[in-house]
Amino acid sequence: MGRVTVRRPVRMLTSHGMRRRPDALAAEEPLEIRVSGKPLAVTMRTPGHDVELAHGFLLSEGVIGASEDVALARYCDSLDDQGRNTYNVLDIALADGVPPPETGVERNFYTTSSCGVCGKAALAAVKLRTRYSPSGSPFTITPNLLAELPDVLRARQRVFAATGGLHAAGLFTSDGSLLTVREDVGRHNAVDKVLGWALLERGVPLADCGLLVSGRASFELVQKAAMAGIPMLAAVSAPSSLAVELAEENGMTLVGFLRGQSMNLYTGEKRIMEG
Amino acid sequence: MGRVTVRRPVRMLTSHGMRRRPDALAAEEPLEIRVSGKPLAVTMRTPGHDVELAHGFLLSEGVIGASEDVALARYCDSLDDQGRNTYNVLDIALADGVPPPETGVERNFYTTSSCGVCGKAALAAVKLRTRYSPSGSPFTITPNLLAELPDVLRARQRVFAATGGLHAAGLFTSDGSLLTVREDVGRHNAVDKVLGWALLERGVPLADCGLLVSGRASFELVQKAAMAGIPMLAAVSAPSSLAVELAEENGMTLVGFLRGQSMNLYTGEKRIMEG
Repeated sequence: MGRVTVRRPVRMLTSHGMRRRPDALAAEEPLEIRVSGKPLAVTMRTPGHDVELAHGFLLSEGVIGASEDVALARYCDSLDDQGRNTYNVLDIALADGVPPPETGVERNFYTTSSCGVCGKAALAAVKLRTRYSPSGSPFTITPNLLAELPDVLRARQRVFAATGGLHAAGLFTSDGSLLTVREDVGRHNAVDKVLGWALLERGVPLADCGLLVSGRASFELVQKAAMAGIPMLAAVSAPSSLAVELAEENGMTLVGFLRGQSMNLYTGEKRIMEG
Repeated sequence: MGRVTVRRPVRMLTSHGMRRRPDALAAEEPLEIRVSGKPLAVTMRTPGHDVELAHGFLLSEGVIGASEDVALARYCDSLDDQGRNTYNVLDIALADGVPPPETGVERNFYTTSSCGVCGKAALAAVKLRTRYSPSGSPFTITPNLLAELPDVLRARQRVFAATGGLHAAGLFTSDGSLLTVREDVGRHNAVDKVLGWALLERGVPLADCGLLVSGRASFELVQKAAMAGIPMLAAVSAPSSLAVELAEENGMTLVGFLRGQSMNLYTGEKRIMEG
């Protein structure tokens, strides 16, 4: 549990020859998330902050909307070959009155066989409706404060520094503070951990925050931000076409290629303003 | 169909001020893969090479093992708001005698509620057994040829050059040739497109090839390579702990941080040899 790096011997080959040395690898292990004992999802994640991850995942999926919606989160007594708990199965008990998620095919797929609308349905199946629309948020930040954030994020990526192998996500405020940073081998997990932290520590919607990610901005990450009511997503790398479309649809600000003093504003530029 | 980039206006903000310009974004759209009319998966992908993607996906999932296992691949008549085919739903008809994949919860989750082994079961659920063990492959490549491959890959990433937003995967041979390169917003899709191409054009197992990826090496990518019988995975960035474990288990060679003249050999170093 909480093993974020794993040491292994490696042969490093350079133009000066070969040398053996120990290497630190980013840990990757499966986490099974159950709801009331029923398997919901398996995600390949870096161990640690699993309770946050599960909360963020359930928020992203529209299952919960507040920390009170979860009655209990506990690791199952899963054992490995040596009889040690693997801490790779987490069971979430929902509070009374919170409807459990749909599982199985219904969750990802519509059941109609009508082919005439299946293209739209395929997108409809992955698109979720947020209960916390970010469109009305008055959140703003200056370009200068925003431009400094990737360096701050990188400085706080402890595991990346050791392994070079992790994505990071962070939550920032209008004054350029990074409230929290989480790392993971999966960028969606890093975001879920941040959202779960926020749900547990601050409450959602996060109308007064932006979300910063170390890599690209995909549809999935814009959707996660929208589900938490976050009005701004800033990515160090490129956004996809559908990320921009979804950000526009939700009245969010999408910033890409946030590097040095330069950035691209794709949607919602009103929230980037000189102080 | 085949729209790999989408043009959108963007405001570019630099220390010299703001200017508007059109920007090319990597296209991201959902692809629903059906088997005999039954929805199997929705993946967020860059349109194009969808038939390859579906073949590679089904190979990776252990559903098919040769191109003859597929009788027919066709787009459903899915229409968008303007009545145009979305080309976002692909139906695969399996050949007679090929068992259809398990769908629904059984596919991703075991059904026992025994908690004592659930940690192992979570991993067992994501781990697949390959019908083409790569362990006996005599494939080798020299360090010099391997070191040149990332530049060749980058030179052939046409869409990345335009958008900065795509992962790439390529298949290479012992003499340092890149047989094919595919790009996608999802790195697993880029790999599936490469594997599908190989299944259709060369046949599997790919015991005489290595797989090159532009980013990190995860458990999932090692597994996909193993399912196609590929003995070597070379990644420009870091591997995860589980990627290294799975490569070792399958007798594969795993190379990471392949940059300039330098590389890290994690497993199967016997296949990297001076000419």
